[in-house]
Amino acid sequence: MDKTKRGACAVIFISRRNANDPQGYAQASETMAAEAARQPGYLGMDSVRDADGEGITISFWQDEAAALAWRKHAEHSLIRDRGRSDWYDRYGVVVTRIERAYHWRR
Amino acid sequence: MDKTKRGACAVIFISRRNANDPQGYAQASETMAAEAARQPGYLGMDSVRDADGEGITISFWQDEAAALAWRKHAEHSLIRDRGRSDWYDRYGVVVTRIERAYHWRR
Repeated sequence: MDKTKRGACAVIFISRRNANDPQGYAQASETMAAEAARQPGYLGMDSVRDADGEGITISFWQDEAAALAWRKHAEHSLIRDRGRSDWYDRYGVVVTRIERAYHWRR
Repeated sequence: MDKTKRGACAVIFISRRNANDPQGYAQASETMAAEAARQPGYLGMDSVRDADGEGITISFWQDEAAALAWRKHAEHSLIRDRGRSDWYDRYGVVVTRIERAYHWRR
């Protein structure tokens, strides 16, 4: 399954981590990535964070309904609350629809 | 201008840098970011690269035509060729249309 196929939903999460609770954050991040991958309509994920705490994660979904279901997922909602109370200085979520994509490899 | 407004175009660039030519790459990257910001329809950019060379850059455009014009920009095209010959192991470009967005700040 091509996660970047036309019509799929890409959710862009741009965030700034603070320095709090690195272990708790790392564990929650790993648990959420594994749980997301078990959801219906999940197509894949790419995630990068630099040494300053700036991060971008893209999750790919079959359609916007699948992305919305993940947003409403109970454990994910609890973890988001914890993100706001403990882990992030700011974040933005941008929900998009894929128009086209191309890939290059050496 | 809200770069994440509904209907705008977000171009996701996911790439893996090799270790070649860090100075040439850094200079080209800076020049291209400044040149992109001068293009009609440019709304903004977010970019993160981690210590392993994995990077995600999102550029935001008024519409897909503006993003396409930047793709065809002469200097940008030359730099892309150099990216393939020298700087990247792989990359993917995903062109999307923004459906909705929300932002949080502590």
